[in-house]
Amino acid sequence: MIGGGQGAFIGGVHRMAAAIAGNWQLVAGAFSSTPEKSRASGAEIGVAADRTYGSWVEMLEREKALPDDQRIEVVAIVTPNHMHAPPAIAALEAGFDVIIDKPLADTLANARAIADAAARTGRKIAVTHTYTGYPLVKQARAMVASGELGAIRRVMVKYTQDWLSRPDDLIGNKQAEWRVDPARSGEAGAFGDIGTHAANLVEFITGERITAICAELAMLPGRRIDDDGAALFRLSGGGRGTLTASQICVGDANDLAISVYGEKAGLHWRQEQPNSLTVGRRDQPTQTWHAGANRAYLSPALQAIQRTPGGHPEGYLEAFANIYAAFGRSIRGVASEDGEPGFATMDDAIAGMTFIRASLDSSSKGAVWVDLSTII
Amino acid sequence: MIGGGQGAFIGGVHRMAAAIAGNWQLVAGAFSSTPEKSRASGAEIGVAADRTYGSWVEMLEREKALPDDQRIEVVAIVTPNHMHAPPAIAALEAGFDVIIDKPLADTLANARAIADAAARTGRKIAVTHTYTGYPLVKQARAMVASGELGAIRRVMVKYTQDWLSRPDDLIGNKQAEWRVDPARSGEAGAFGDIGTHAANLVEFITGERITAICAELAMLPGRRIDDDGAALFRLSGGGRGTLTASQICVGDANDLAISVYGEKAGLHWRQEQPNSLTVGRRDQPTQTWHAGANRAYLSPALQAIQRTPGGHPEGYLEAFANIYAAFGRSIRGVASEDGEPGFATMDDAIAGMTFIRASLDSSSKGAVWVDLSTII
Amino acid sequence: MIGGGQGAFIGGVHRMAAAIAGNWQLVAGAFSSTPEKSRASGAEIGVAADRTYGSWVEMLEREKALPDDQRIEVVAIVTPNHMHAPPAIAALEAGFDVIIDKPLADTLANARAIADAAARTGRKIAVTHTYTGYPLVKQARAMVASGELGAIRRVMVKYTQDWLSRPDDLIGNKQAEWRVDPARSGEAGAFGDIGTHAANLVEFITGERITAICAELAMLPGRRIDDDGAALFRLSGGGRGTLTASQICVGDANDLAISVYGEKAGLHWRQEQPNSLTVGRRDQPTQTWHAGANRAYLSPALQAIQRTPGGHPEGYLEAFANIYAAFGRSIRGVASEDGEPGFATMDDAIAGMTFIRASLDSSSKGAVWVDLSTII
Amino acid sequence: MIGGGQGAFIGGVHRMAAAIAGNWQLVAGAFSSTPEKSRASGAEIGVAADRTYGSWVEMLEREKALPDDQRIEVVAIVTPNHMHAPPAIAALEAGFDVIIDKPLADTLANARAIADAAARTGRKIAVTHTYTGYPLVKQARAMVASGELGAIRRVMVKYTQDWLSRPDDLIGNKQAEWRVDPARSGEAGAFGDIGTHAANLVEFITGERITAICAELAMLPGRRIDDDGAALFRLSGGGRGTLTASQICVGDANDLAISVYGEKAGLHWRQEQPNSLTVGRRDQPTQTWHAGANRAYLSPALQAIQRTPGGHPEGYLEAFANIYAAFGRSIRGVASEDGEPGFATMDDAIAGMTFIRASLDSSSKGAVWVDLSTII
Repeated sequence: MIGGGQGAFIGGVHRMAAAIAGNWQLVAGAFSSTPEKSRASGAEIGVAADRTYGSWVEMLEREKALPDDQRIEVVAIVTPNHMHAPPAIAALEAGFDVIIDKPLADTLANARAIADAAARTGRKIAVTHTYTGYPLVKQARAMVASGELGAIRRVMVKYTQDWLSRPDDLIGNKQAEWRVDPARSGEAGAFGDIGTHAANLVEFITGERITAICAELAMLPGRRIDDDGAALFRLSGGGRGTLTASQICVGDANDLAISVYGEKAGLHWRQEQPNSLTVGRRDQPTQTWHAGANRAYLSPALQAIQRTPGGHPEGYLEAFANIYAAFGRSIRGVASEDGEPGFATMDDAIAGMTFIRASLDSSSKGAVWVDLSTII
Repeated sequence: MIGGGQGAFIGGVHRMAAAIAGNWQLVAGAFSSTPEKSRASGAEIGVAADRTYGSWVEMLEREKALPDDQRIEVVAIVTPNHMHAPPAIAALEAGFDVIIDKPLADTLANARAIADAAARTGRKIAVTHTYTGYPLVKQARAMVASGELGAIRRVMVKYTQDWLSRPDDLIGNKQAEWRVDPARSGEAGAFGDIGTHAANLVEFITGERITAICAELAMLPGRRIDDDGAALFRLSGGGRGTLTASQICVGDANDLAISVYGEKAGLHWRQEQPNSLTVGRRDQPTQTWHAGANRAYLSPALQAIQRTPGGHPEGYLEAFANIYAAFGRSIRGVASEDGEPGFATMDDAIAGMTFIRASLDSSSKGAVWVDLSTII
Repeated sequence: MIGGGQGAFIGGVHRMAAAIAGNWQLVAGAFSSTPEKSRASGAEIGVAADRTYGSWVEMLEREKALPDDQRIEVVAIVTPNHMHAPPAIAALEAGFDVIIDKPLADTLANARAIADAAARTGRKIAVTHTYTGYPLVKQARAMVASGELGAIRRVMVKYTQDWLSRPDDLIGNKQAEWRVDPARSGEAGAFGDIGTHAANLVEFITGERITAICAELAMLPGRRIDDDGAALFRLSGGGRGTLTASQICVGDANDLAISVYGEKAGLHWRQEQPNSLTVGRRDQPTQTWHAGANRAYLSPALQAIQRTPGGHPEGYLEAFANIYAAFGRSIRGVASEDGEPGFATMDDAIAGMTFIRASLDSSSKGAVWVDLSTII
Repeated sequence: MIGGGQGAFIGGVHRMAAAIAGNWQLVAGAFSSTPEKSRASGAEIGVAADRTYGSWVEMLEREKALPDDQRIEVVAIVTPNHMHAPPAIAALEAGFDVIIDKPLADTLANARAIADAAARTGRKIAVTHTYTGYPLVKQARAMVASGELGAIRRVMVKYTQDWLSRPDDLIGNKQAEWRVDPARSGEAGAFGDIGTHAANLVEFITGERITAICAELAMLPGRRIDDDGAALFRLSGGGRGTLTASQICVGDANDLAISVYGEKAGLHWRQEQPNSLTVGRRDQPTQTWHAGANRAYLSPALQAIQRTPGGHPEGYLEAFANIYAAFGRSIRGVASEDGEPGFATMDDAIAGMTFIRASLDSSSKGAVWVDLSTII
């Protein structure tokens, strides 16, 4: 693992997810930007001292030098966005597979460089778009793919939080500090951090791509990066949608919610209550689908990724674990039951970076339409 | 009453609303476009035969000729949109007050003509934007006005239905037929019929006006008028929002829902469950406010317009009745308890018509921003 | 109308319900216990002075003396419970049909006397168990009757309020005062006032009778009558259930909620959100049925009693109006579409009174089982 | 670990819970009733072959013989109920601490024998009443303890499932088979399996004990043990309640839900949506408390046991992990932040077994009241 030391948030989530997944073991790490902090973190986490490295450069070098059956197999990268590309590319080139937090990189160029490295080296790489790890999000995708909704007409997606809603929210908050610093977070703020989750969710469920966007981003006085914004967008299949991403919507914690309407049905899912999926059809009672390892109406593949029977709620960590588990199986060459990778691919991640770039372009020009195919 | 004969929908709603309001009596009407149908309708409704007229022209003439204490006081206009302006203007000029369904008219020009007539004659006129009749919508407005939310930052509003979701939904449906005919409905379809409710709700709750809009409207193949669309908008106070209005969102019945986020709190209301209002604040439990005539935490004015104690749900008809009751009191010169008119005024209605016009302009130019102050 | 004068609550509800029903007209009344208050109330309500009577005795005498086509047809009795039997019996004997609030009377003996009078005179009589007027409660009953649930196994019903939750809630509250006075309310407090609604709902939906009950009633210090209690009960079809009725459950307004589980499905309904009905089946997504005059999946009879399309919530007053409308049609000899009376009959009301008597007996003996067939 | 081999359910849950807790390591086990199955299970789970034992007797003997710093510290017992007491007592006597699934044993006598062994040996022992591991259940308990609700008046608790709702549900289901066999499950079925969770939840939140119960249990034709039942109960503080526990309530998955009403407030929690807690007060908006590691309105102790910020749902496994984590800290001698043990103690477990015994006694005598202090 690269990153995820003391004071970090998402690194611990990756570790718990891997533990729940059950097919991972954390054996080495360079957890912080300084050797001292890295070692202290490693000791706390329980990684052997001789495999807790002072820097990621050192880790890659020394692990590569170990015999095949002793060295690490995969590198998990959980650093701030600007520190994604260098270790990712180096790890791929050192012959390791990579699992990396989203968004893929701080800039589209760096993201493409990672994707190129993956293609060049033939190593596997997964991006942790957590929310696609929820079983009922996969069910939603399966329903659209099977034609149950018909052609998609309209999408509404929102991802709203309130942790940056006060002007002074930057001070003394490690999570906030790097996220609002363009040098570390990348060009985009809320649209990069959570807008890309929302866009990814749209693309995952519909099986389409966002082709054009008209976005207006904003920020509180004194900020250097967007903390709020909304967009109209068009989908490759002809549908249209609205997307809101904001970190200043007071009272909302992590409110990712999506509605997808097709010719024959509409479906609704909300991350804060992830174990139900609502499906509306005309002239029929509304259906609520429930998660659960024993739900006979879910596909065997969806049953298999759940750990507990219906009514025992699984949550965010289990969704995250599903991504780790799927990437683990992929690395081991185990075919997925339903033909899905189970994690976001380079294509998905580049689409996300293009979405960010197009949103910024659109907004900076006064919220005009930008065609994503023109983004280079 | 003008309109509202056999086969009509909203006329019956107006009559029930007036009955619940308790300060109205229906004594005369021209209920249909032909004398025969008007008479049949009048008999069914229970209006005396000698005051069931063959046309609205006849009604206005003959009622005007009656002695002061026998003639009608107010004319309720519940015809399709293109038949709003002529009887409304005539009624005002004949010295009657007018209550009229929304949108105010088929075109902005006709809407302005009505407003001019009202101003010229000094008669009172109310527009039935039903949803502002709900007690908790008024509570939401009061909270914003009192500063409890602080400056408004973001609004999300949607109004979705599915009754036009099938291409053949026009055939044999009286409600659908005129609404999708530009000659009768006016230039806009869904944006006129329900988008204007959504826009009105935004303006009512925030106490601000929509100043600019970027809208993309669409319609199913074979249609002549929008049945679906979405927009970004800006508010006079600096906030921003998204608005979706659609009659092709499968599974949704009458799903008007709004979220308003300010600096200090966010509030959420949904028409299909109108008796609760959710208020989110940072670092505090979410509050759910409940309707009820005996809720001590609602203002006396809000308690007074409810008919039953908390937990006895009031609905759409009671909200509609609140508008009738308020206009009735206004006509009688009874001051409202909270200084609010209790119904949509000409200013509100003209704002709605401007919203429609701007949305159409924006969409026809490829979904560009249109400043509402430029609409003439 | 007998009762329902100034300061009363349920009388106004009856009047609004009748107005919404549309097939009723209020033409005469004895609204209060004193002639002066009756006259003042009548003037306020808008009943002609010459038909506002000083007492119900006077009203029945003078109305009976009027010609057939001028006199009242039905008497609505909305007095406190102890004043149900005398005017009801007199009205029936004077040849009038009767609609009467629940519970039918203060004591089982008085209830039987009313039922006997109805049988003897052949007049029609309806009891306003409001909650069976909701369309989706009727839908629930229809589902059980059709065998969709199979044999009923278990029922949970609760009716909780908090308006008597403070020891001093009796002082200065006209609604509370008579309800907690055994001389006016009858022997039971909460179990009579709302427990009987809960029991009626069980019997209405299941189509069965409660055959045995084990109830424990309680009251706050200083009270003379139960304000809280719960019971186990058995149904005629072999199922079992729990019932809670309380007026001291802090935070609850009018929370009548029921779950009915059969061999094949379970259904759930809650009065505070009356426009949805949830149906659970094993190995199938949960269904939510929605109210609405245009819901094709509801029977024509259920569509016909609703006034607005799906998504326009109807509430308590409309449910009440459905009872008035059905009784009005019954009096006119119009057959109901679905063969249901549409209001609670003498059998239902006597069952309710027996339930009250058995609950009191059970509780006073230490919460032992009481067989309702032994109640005399 | 004793039990939890191939085909078992709860063993895997214990293992995941321990992994999430982070302060546990699984190093040895006797996973099945036969040495072969135990070894196969151990290999699958990833326990070293030389510490996968053929029987729990062998495991205790050989682990005890290991040096202090090599042998296991705690034994987790996840066998069917009838196999709780023998290994638990042996483990305690061998000097190991014990964590054991609920109910504590198959019979009250065996439960007492375990408790006696714990007292005699001075070893620590925890019972995994999972649902008390949820942060908001702890919050509910804290609110009652702090006096925010005042004296408790009424409780409603239900725990309903449908996995035994069909007569043939016993065949070929390993989970069902032992649970419905009195020889393995103990005397009680649903009341032992889930009724005791419900009772424990009541006692945990109220901080009181159930002192008397009147229960009626039932079972489908052909069953030997209760699969359904309900009870009235009395609390040590004077409050009263109803409890339903059923495995034949069609459409319900794992629906544990509780309402607790006190003099000043009522609170409501439902396991299937565990991250919110609703609090009703009179004349105030309803509050919804939300889970989350960063919720400033939760106590530091409650924040500390959560892994993710508000809006990232934690679920059943995390609640279970909280119990493991707390017991782990207790074994290490780390004092809990809030003075709570964080797991069910012998007192709690004996109370649960007494509840089962009293329920069975009550039901077998025709659902009469049984005083729990008379249970021996």
